[in-house]
Amino acid sequence: MSLLNDTIAGIRYQDQDTRRRAKDRLDRLTMPHWALGRLLDLALDLAGMTGSLQPVVERRLIITMAGDHGVADEGVSAFPREVTGQMVANIAAGGAGINALARVAGARVQVVDMGAACDLSSLAESGRILSRRIAPGTANMAVGAAMSREQAVRSIEAGIELAQTFAADTDLFGTGEMGIANTTPSSAIVAVLTGATVEQATGCGTGIDVERRKHKVAVIERALQVNRPDPDDGLDILAKVGGFEIGGLAGMILGAAAQKKAIIIDGFISTAAALIAQSLAPASTDYMIAAHHSIEQGHCLALERLGKKPLLDLDFRLGEGTGAALAMNLVEGAQRILTEMATFEEAAVSQGNVNQ
Amino acid sequence: MSLLNDTIAGIRYQDQDTRRRAKDRLDRLTMPHWALGRLLDLALDLAGMTGSLQPVVERRLIITMAGDHGVADEGVSAFPREVTGQMVANIAAGGAGINALARVAGARVQVVDMGAACDLSSLAESGRILSRRIAPGTANMAVGAAMSREQAVRSIEAGIELAQTFAADTDLFGTGEMGIANTTPSSAIVAVLTGATVEQATGCGTGIDVERRKHKVAVIERALQVNRPDPDDGLDILAKVGGFEIGGLAGMILGAAAQKKAIIIDGFISTAAALIAQSLAPASTDYMIAAHHSIEQGHCLALERLGKKPLLDLDFRLGEGTGAALAMNLVEGAQRILTEMATFEEAAVSQGNVNQ
Repeated sequence: MSLLNDTIAGIRYQDQDTRRRAKDRLDRLTMPHWALGRLLDLALDLAGMTGSLQPVVERRLIITMAGDHGVADEGVSAFPREVTGQMVANIAAGGAGINALARVAGARVQVVDMGAACDLSSLAESGRILSRRIAPGTANMAVGAAMSREQAVRSIEAGIELAQTFAADTDLFGTGEMGIANTTPSSAIVAVLTGATVEQATGCGTGIDVERRKHKVAVIERALQVNRPDPDDGLDILAKVGGFEIGGLAGMILGAAAQKKAIIIDGFISTAAALIAQSLAPASTDYMIAAHHSIEQGHCLALERLGKKPLLDLDFRLGEGTGAALAMNLVEGAQRILTEMATFEEAAVSQGNVNQ
Repeated sequence: MSLLNDTIAGIRYQDQDTRRRAKDRLDRLTMPHWALGRLLDLALDLAGMTGSLQPVVERRLIITMAGDHGVADEGVSAFPREVTGQMVANIAAGGAGINALARVAGARVQVVDMGAACDLSSLAESGRILSRRIAPGTANMAVGAAMSREQAVRSIEAGIELAQTFAADTDLFGTGEMGIANTTPSSAIVAVLTGATVEQATGCGTGIDVERRKHKVAVIERALQVNRPDPDDGLDILAKVGGFEIGGLAGMILGAAAQKKAIIIDGFISTAAALIAQSLAPASTDYMIAAHHSIEQGHCLALERLGKKPLLDLDFRLGEGTGAALAMNLVEGAQRILTEMATFEEAAVSQGNVNQ
């Protein structure tokens, strides 16, 4: 467990001195004061994360982690489990939503098999995906722990190692996932870590109806009763009601934070992973950027707990990293404002007489 | 007036058959039904605007129109009038917010002098801006018409001509503006065309305080009493309480719509121009994409009247085209989803059992 502990110990809060110096420059740019609003808040964050007034966000990577879930046996999803592997193949072939949107951002997409139920070895052997399989799907959390504590640690450490490896040629990370039924463990995690009821934390996932959602709520309530995860122990929560791709993403986030790299948190499942990361290392939230507000019920609660306001609100409910990809150009906008705009003095523009 | 009339007569509503065919394809893409929400709505619009299932949005242009306003004499802005020309020079030199954000979108920025008070001829002669000057600033609308009806027509026709010229090498337009005091005529236009009170339609512009805003409201109320613009006549409204850059933008919008090109409407002032375009040619709204929700009070009312929900909400209040530039990559995202994603059949992915 030393990689996990060492990583957590190595995460620092944003650099306040760099933030102050960035604020001083942003205050003097040729526009009414703070007239680019939340893009300027984001520019401050980029400066604080990287400790630089010239942050770089050029080389971009979306990591899409895949995993299956034993709880799918309970009939909580609108899609059959085989879709996890089919969609992994679709992403690897470039035909999924994340591929189209990553192209907009000029981002690479790397799929990682954290534990799909089906055999993806041919995709891994051909180099089109990475394999960090913990097991062929989690156990059914409605009847016992989804995984062992040791598996939980391994899934997180796999994510940390990937972040360490990719950090060498990545300036800006984005999270993504694919796993049929994975809104179910995510809702369980959100309920435990926000203190909300399962009813409040559970939505319609890929599109189940009212009756099936009621059933999903009951399944999650049963999982929490059976497992009694410790709300003060992120590892315990991940092991009992989590998933391999969720653990992998939590590790990615911790690894990126330890490397002082910005990481864009995609949607509901990624936010659940971010809550696990926050629970293990509160300072890691300083490196997270919330991409978008999903229509999945419970996402608001999770974002509030994380202390993040998302950049976009376009009624997405897809995952894969699609929201993170679309947010990458907004991050570039913030970076360019900080590094490329002229100040009033530089451009010889007269200043206003209020709010300066 | 034949260019204006011919252009209005040439604007068609979106092609419904292409929209239907685009909907059919989007319904079958490898994701839960409509899981990319508003990006899919936008993809439908692109198909309907261009009459193509393979719309192109590659070559992008932001037109930033500059003008001055006689009503600035009333002390309605936080900035002195000389800033209009200074900011035109700043944009031409590449140091403004719009330059930084246009680079994110890979968009060109073209500044057009529609009627700044200062002399910008050296910038025009060196080719760094275009000159379509109607006059060196409008007259003070608080004491009479801002311009003649003939000038209103000329400003709109200048915009139409620019759209026609640039359409040859532009797939996607964005509007922008620069003009000290131009939220004042914009609020007047929004009040007239939405039926709202001046109090409701007037905000703090570049950052005036509560007292100065009260004064601004009183100035606009006086302008409406003195001029009594006809709410059913967009030209009358533009002439009496508009501005040259607002007329130019209204013309750009009409010209783009006549060419079946999408045009992204930036913030409050651009939306006021879009309302003038709507008033002259209701079908032109079919080619408008609302970029963002500005914090300027009255923008909501204007967007509602236009029937548009903006893509972004980042607390901007800058103008120049900054919101339009940032929205361009979202439009590219919609285009790529329509043209690059695989269907369930193409990717051999199993479909869900609900909401398909």
